[in-house]
Amino acid sequence: MTFPSQQERLIEEITQKITLELGGSCGNRSTEGNHSCQAASGAGGCLSVDSTAVDRIVEQGACRLSAGCQATSIRADLAGLIDHTLLKPNTTRGDVEKLCQEAVQHGFYSVCVNPAFVACCVEMLRGTGVHVCTVVGFPLGANTPEVKAYEASVAKADGASEVDMVINIGALRGGARDYCLQDIRTVVDACHPEVLLKVILETALLTDEEIVLGCEVAQEAGADYVKTSTGFSTRGADASDIALMRRVVGPDMGVKASGGVGNSSRADLMVAMGATRIGASASMKIVKGGSS
Amino acid sequence: MTFPSQQERLIEEITQKITLELGGSCGNRSTEGNHSCQAASGAGGCLSVDSTAVDRIVEQGACRLSAGCQATSIRADLAGLIDHTLLKPNTTRGDVEKLCQEAVQHGFYSVCVNPAFVACCVEMLRGTGVHVCTVVGFPLGANTPEVKAYEASVAKADGASEVDMVINIGALRGGARDYCLQDIRTVVDACHPEVLLKVILETALLTDEEIVLGCEVAQEAGADYVKTSTGFSTRGADASDIALMRRVVGPDMGVKASGGVGNSSRADLMVAMGATRIGASASMKIVKGGSS
Repeated sequence: MTFPSQQERLIEEITQKITLELGGSCGNRSTEGNHSCQAASGAGGCLSVDSTAVDRIVEQGACRLSAGCQATSIRADLAGLIDHTLLKPNTTRGDVEKLCQEAVQHGFYSVCVNPAFVACCVEMLRGTGVHVCTVVGFPLGANTPEVKAYEASVAKADGASEVDMVINIGALRGGARDYCLQDIRTVVDACHPEVLLKVILETALLTDEEIVLGCEVAQEAGADYVKTSTGFSTRGADASDIALMRRVVGPDMGVKASGGVGNSSRADLMVAMGATRIGASASMKIVKGGSS
Repeated sequence: MTFPSQQERLIEEITQKITLELGGSCGNRSTEGNHSCQAASGAGGCLSVDSTAVDRIVEQGACRLSAGCQATSIRADLAGLIDHTLLKPNTTRGDVEKLCQEAVQHGFYSVCVNPAFVACCVEMLRGTGVHVCTVVGFPLGANTPEVKAYEASVAKADGASEVDMVINIGALRGGARDYCLQDIRTVVDACHPEVLLKVILETALLTDEEIVLGCEVAQEAGADYVKTSTGFSTRGADASDIALMRRVVGPDMGVKASGGVGNSSRADLMVAMGATRIGASASMKIVKGGSS
């Protein structure tokens, strides 16, 4: 598997936005197996979704939107924003195979799995266009910077295209700005340019001031996204967290809402507040629409 | 700081058992600051505790018992079995300093902290005899073996004397015996002989058959202890878990009860079932006695 450079990623994103605005067809896609049109790639369009919803997402600065021709999703507009996530410690290979099948079927942007599953997901998803995302220093973030960086480099070697690292929450709470900056920079260096890096703040444990500081250091360190939650703390993403994070990082950095985004109404709310990616284990429910 | 070899550890443990049975005095201790007698070292005795409780602990195969002359603990017999634990992700350096002070004051066997705090705990506890324990692949266990081993080697370089790793729970549940064995062996190789290795099974997520398999592979791989829980799952240690684990590993391997051991009655029960180490954040409550 080859990795797209950051430039190629940018081109992919711009292409996707333009294609969305122009409207596209499935005819110009390359075919590679049955799932070629289900990937979250930038070529082609074939979106047949509520255009108001799409407009709203694009207005909010969505980085990527996609929908597979054969995708069964009702809310295909959201599918292309979703990291389809399974991080439970008792996850088996069988569970991960199912996760990958669902991601292909619904055109999710990626699967997000624990590091030990990266290599097998890359193998399973080869040629489908679904990316493989993993986690580093997860879910406590209290590992040494060098171990976080090594874990990221192993994930890169295994073929991951995105890494979600946890910030050192205790250091952030203690106001150790330089430590946090260096912690993230070390992982950025291990990831870039091939692998995109998101920084999980775990907003449930932070004050607003600490969220602001976390966003500032993640951005200064060169990370690509800030992300709300691990899904293992006292609560997940809150709409006001997303609004605050978007305000701090401005329009050009990614913001990922994760933890407790359990249906399409919640996902829509996060996007309206400025989220450009959704991390969810309830992804199937999200793309099927509704608020229940 | 120099590390004791396994042989030295064994001598320390035997010395401690003999000293306990003979009864000891504080007079033969070396003094190194105010805390020389509060450490969980093997030299000397000075236990003034309920001898029935001590006998029961030794009968169950306790590896270590200690009590500091100046320790304020009522249940000093238990103090020397306790890994005084603080693994919350929002832990600050100030919290860790307090943890270390408490460990010295009460003669706990070790402090158990996240990897990013190992170096500062080693510094803070130098000369006190309190050990520094840390965690690897924690708390999900779904990291690659090479990353677990690297994290252990960094902890060793930072001065940790014990490492508690999480087994690959999904692989164990899937019956991938060889994978689990290799996963643990890789970390054993990174730890031994300077650093003692405990393997956390996360019994809350396992059937009895899986607990048995987990114990077998941990023992075959050469780990020093099996341990019940991370404290981050649906429940902590159960007395029957400990009994089962002790039955499988026999008398010569350590068994650590952790998670939810919140008072001395619970700690006594775990020891009666075969636990030779207790992991607790409620360590102060444990050594103060009582069941409430």
